[in-house]
Amino acid sequence: MSTPPSSAGPSRWKNLGERTLLSTRIFEVRSVHFHHPVRAVDRDFVVVAAPDWCNVIALTPDGQLVLVRQFRYGTDEFSLEIPGGVIDAGEDPVAAGVRELREETGFVGTSARLLASVRPNPAFLNNHAHFVLVENATRSTAQACDHDEEIEVSTARVDDVLAWARAGKITHSLVVCGLMHFEPLWQARRLT
Amino acid sequence: MSTPPSSAGPSRWKNLGERTLLSTRIFEVRSVHFHHPVRAVDRDFVVVAAPDWCNVIALTPDGQLVLVRQFRYGTDEFSLEIPGGVIDAGEDPVAAGVRELREETGFVGTSARLLASVRPNPAFLNNHAHFVLVENATRSTAQACDHDEEIEVSTARVDDVLAWARAGKITHSLVVCGLMHFEPLWQARRLT
Repeated sequence: MSTPPSSAGPSRWKNLGERTLLSTRIFEVRSVHFHHPVRAVDRDFVVVAAPDWCNVIALTPDGQLVLVRQFRYGTDEFSLEIPGGVIDAGEDPVAAGVRELREETGFVGTSARLLASVRPNPAFLNNHAHFVLVENATRSTAQACDHDEEIEVSTARVDDVLAWARAGKITHSLVVCGLMHFEPLWQARRLT
Repeated sequence: MSTPPSSAGPSRWKNLGERTLLSTRIFEVRSVHFHHPVRAVDRDFVVVAAPDWCNVIALTPDGQLVLVRQFRYGTDEFSLEIPGGVIDAGEDPVAAGVRELREETGFVGTSARLLASVRPNPAFLNNHAHFVLVENATRSTAQACDHDEEIEVSTARVDDVLAWARAGKITHSLVVCGLMHFEPLWQARRLT
């Protein structure tokens, strides 16, 4: 078995302070002043400080996943995704996932738990993305989208959704990530 | 077989123009003025315009993957990843992957091709991330890191790397994504 490289090697830069370059509704751009302890050089690097995000793998009683399709401003395109959104300050990631699922789709499950967490982009984003598994999800209430959200809800068989991710029909990297983390659990259930 | 939802449903907002809020060395933050054609409302949304990125699945002749470990300014942590970086303006994604692999690790392969592409975050990023498969990669030259890069290079068995991604030892979402896109190809080879 291989082992990950040890902690020897590259140095840990030290954060000596930061200043905000820009504040927006969804993130802050900061210039962070770092010091390299061995080479004794200082450098400013740009970091985007964003709240943590969550995405929800919502499994229906008949083995389908809940999907959302919406227009995305970043790419100027429609995107097929699993539900998700921004975690409120102080909000538990699992609670946020349950909330986002309910608001975006009207689906409510009988159990929810944290499946995995990743870093959206360690190079310049400081936040986490959490993947929440909700089981026995059924359409229980009305959508309660934000004012500017228009979300089309559908369900599809897990195997189809995994195939769409691998075929490039699902392109949101965090959604692909969440599905990868869910896949072994799904395969294990199929074998039992 | 399920089918993705059709193109009916949510409206496509129309981009009526944008202005730059902030320019940094690695991206531009823009305020984009969108118009909703049905509801006839206008809204400004924040979009980060970034160059495309690439990550490289570099397979050695003995079935290992080339890994890099480095300090990341966004998360203020070390991160274990596959090689990758920013694609230069006008540069082909596959050429960029080959270049990043050589610069960061000194590894050079005998063939390279595009494996898949994703959107890092359609909500606010306008760019693509491309995954490049390089085969028969061997250490052929010296590292040529950027001035502020310190990169520790290692190799590890493919199965171990996939297990690390699923166990949370590899957390960069785009790296997890790239590994997910590589996995079926790897499984198929094992069966032949």
